[in-house]
Amino acid sequence: MEKIEKANAETLQRMLAGEPVLVDCIPAGEAIPALEKGLILHSGPPIEWARMCGPMRGAVTGIAVFEGWAADLADAEKKAAAGAFRFAPNHHYGAVGPMTGMTTLSQPLLVVENKKFRNRAYCAINEGLGKVMRFGGNDAEVLGRLAWMRDELGPALGRALRDMGGIPLKTLIARGLSMGDEMHQRNIACSSLLLRLLAPALARTSKDTPPLERCLDFIGRNDQFFLNIAMAMGKAITDPARGIEGSSVVTAMCRNGTDFGIRVSGTGDTWFTAPVEMPDGLYFPGYSEKDANPDMGDSAIVETIGLGGFAMAAAPAVAGFVGAGPASEAANFTRRMGEITAGANPEWTIPSLDYAGVPTGIDIRRVVETQIAPTINTGIAHRQPGVGQVGAGVVKAPMACFETALVAFAEKMGVA
Amino acid sequence: MEKIEKANAETLQRMLAGEPVLVDCIPAGEAIPALEKGLILHSGPPIEWARMCGPMRGAVTGIAVFEGWAADLADAEKKAAAGAFRFAPNHHYGAVGPMTGMTTLSQPLLVVENKKFRNRAYCAINEGLGKVMRFGGNDAEVLGRLAWMRDELGPALGRALRDMGGIPLKTLIARGLSMGDEMHQRNIACSSLLLRLLAPALARTSKDTPPLERCLDFIGRNDQFFLNIAMAMGKAITDPARGIEGSSVVTAMCRNGTDFGIRVSGTGDTWFTAPVEMPDGLYFPGYSEKDANPDMGDSAIVETIGLGGFAMAAAPAVAGFVGAGPASEAANFTRRMGEITAGANPEWTIPSLDYAGVPTGIDIRRVVETQIAPTINTGIAHRQPGVGQVGAGVVKAPMACFETALVAFAEKMGVA
Repeated sequence: MEKIEKANAETLQRMLAGEPVLVDCIPAGEAIPALEKGLILHSGPPIEWARMCGPMRGAVTGIAVFEGWAADLADAEKKAAAGAFRFAPNHHYGAVGPMTGMTTLSQPLLVVENKKFRNRAYCAINEGLGKVMRFGGNDAEVLGRLAWMRDELGPALGRALRDMGGIPLKTLIARGLSMGDEMHQRNIACSSLLLRLLAPALARTSKDTPPLERCLDFIGRNDQFFLNIAMAMGKAITDPARGIEGSSVVTAMCRNGTDFGIRVSGTGDTWFTAPVEMPDGLYFPGYSEKDANPDMGDSAIVETIGLGGFAMAAAPAVAGFVGAGPASEAANFTRRMGEITAGANPEWTIPSLDYAGVPTGIDIRRVVETQIAPTINTGIAHRQPGVGQVGAGVVKAPMACFETALVAFAEKMGVA
Repeated sequence: MEKIEKANAETLQRMLAGEPVLVDCIPAGEAIPALEKGLILHSGPPIEWARMCGPMRGAVTGIAVFEGWAADLADAEKKAAAGAFRFAPNHHYGAVGPMTGMTTLSQPLLVVENKKFRNRAYCAINEGLGKVMRFGGNDAEVLGRLAWMRDELGPALGRALRDMGGIPLKTLIARGLSMGDEMHQRNIACSSLLLRLLAPALARTSKDTPPLERCLDFIGRNDQFFLNIAMAMGKAITDPARGIEGSSVVTAMCRNGTDFGIRVSGTGDTWFTAPVEMPDGLYFPGYSEKDANPDMGDSAIVETIGLGGFAMAAAPAVAGFVGAGPASEAANFTRRMGEITAGANPEWTIPSLDYAGVPTGIDIRRVVETQIAPTINTGIAHRQPGVGQVGAGVVKAPMACFETALVAFAEKMGVA
């Protein structure tokens, strides 16, 4: 028992000690040398084509066409079914991706370096709203945008970030928490603060104004631009907390639209999975629950580090957006998450709670004991490929993941 | 009594119906044709050189040198004392200015147009922190910055704003209120959102990248950049609410560092003044109350339209900055201001209060009856010229202004 407490304290300490800095934006093939032709990284725990949900299949066929591995979507689908592509979780390659989470050879990836532990983590650039690949979009508009991001936006971001020497994220998040962001379904403050920092460097490293204008405009129109950076930051912060013997703290939560998976520090890289749940939320006009795909994406990494649903109190405005009840009750979500975490983050505080730190480090023992599941703020995708986002909501991590993990953890500790 | 209620409802309605849009940035001489050589507009109600406080005198001498009306600061002081300059309140010329509030011929002014009533209001560009003229600074650094603003920043802002067709402010403020701004001592959200909107247009209307980089950098480093826009907006919103017979609603509150002045709709353009009070606040390291100048600036126009101290609940983080007590008690300030206002603004709401509107339209009858003075969030200037900001705090509008105004109002209504 004492050993577990000590191990958990160490896990939490490593997460809190992280110094995440957004340092670069580079092609995925450079960031992750193991990426090769035909290898498609996806969100969530491992999954094969046969069990993939609609939007995930839509994204797979789209990205295969984008990479030139298939002539068209029909060809891509045939090839996927015939086993022509290899699938693996982003998490196995130091990366994360929102919703469908496609990561392949030629996409530009944002690079977050944890200066304290010298590890790096990666995430693709947020595509904005509307028809986008992360929600299963795969038409010409979607692929055209990805090509522009590869050819113009990604390189411009890389030049600016290298020129600036990177952007430290810890203080940026602290500011964002005092500006109503929880960094999952609400990123408008951090997206704006980031652009404010980036804009002069983008101007300084641009030769011409028209491409600069396109980049400033694209980032400026996207309230969720920062989400993907927060996700890479989450991965960079949690990776050094993996594999601490005796620790019952969660180091990853993710979903592929079919399964929800968690990893626990003391049980290393084993995935504990269970069927994903349906988000409980609000739908855009014209859509309802029957259109919704089950929960999806690596974005729950932000809840793993105390943000998103765990920081709901910082973002009363998000409560209404995700259908989580009156804004004035947002604080209750954060308080409840405090019952299942190993501690709080003294550097990420919430003004309206008189600067209480966000609850951090999910302890699987407490989750099982209290039967309080981690709350995740999420976007909701249409269950058919190619449609896109239909709403936003709150979803609970399946209790079964934590129960299975606790059994395995107990066995490893020799107490089963 | 019924007549007053009706007149107040009309005053409030005019304030709420305003459609403020930031449309341009142009030289003061163009914006206000009556501006001429030797005419210096200042913050607050009318005041002559002999009664001006230290920072106001510092600013006057500085701006006289900047405009080329004096050889140096000593010469400017001699000329001012000899009556070589003419002084008048910004409010008499459709303008407002923060702290000392200098407005003269060649400064660039931000232009807010109230599209509903077709009136315009003006405010100079925020200079940033440190040694600045609004806090009485007047050395070469201060004047050099003003020259750059006149020659490069102002024209660039004007080009971008005209190219965009202006930036509607009502929805921007609504967003800012959900991001922790109260638009007086905290403007980081609106400043960032504004830059996000401006940046692509600045790029589009710039020929070269180095001046563009300087503009983006200057705006991006200034968390209070938006304050001056909020002030011009306040003036543009309150001006159409002036002169409504029988209305006991305040249309302006301002201070010149010596006197506090208010105007009431039903009593037209008469100023009701009383000695300004000392802010109660927190001081920057090395400074204390004994360094502080009494309350100063036209910025209390934002409280006149329901922001600043009236919207404290939206900005729990500001409560600590201005020394107004625990963040969790910020809501009490807003609730208290609800006791002295004619209504609330349904378009400017506060998420943490379950989207209650900001209390709007100060009714002098209620102020006197409840003895609750309007709360103003303010910066604190050093009492000596040339030093600058030494803190931030909360100040109460002097009760005597409202008592004198109520007597005059009653006389005008024939009930005295």
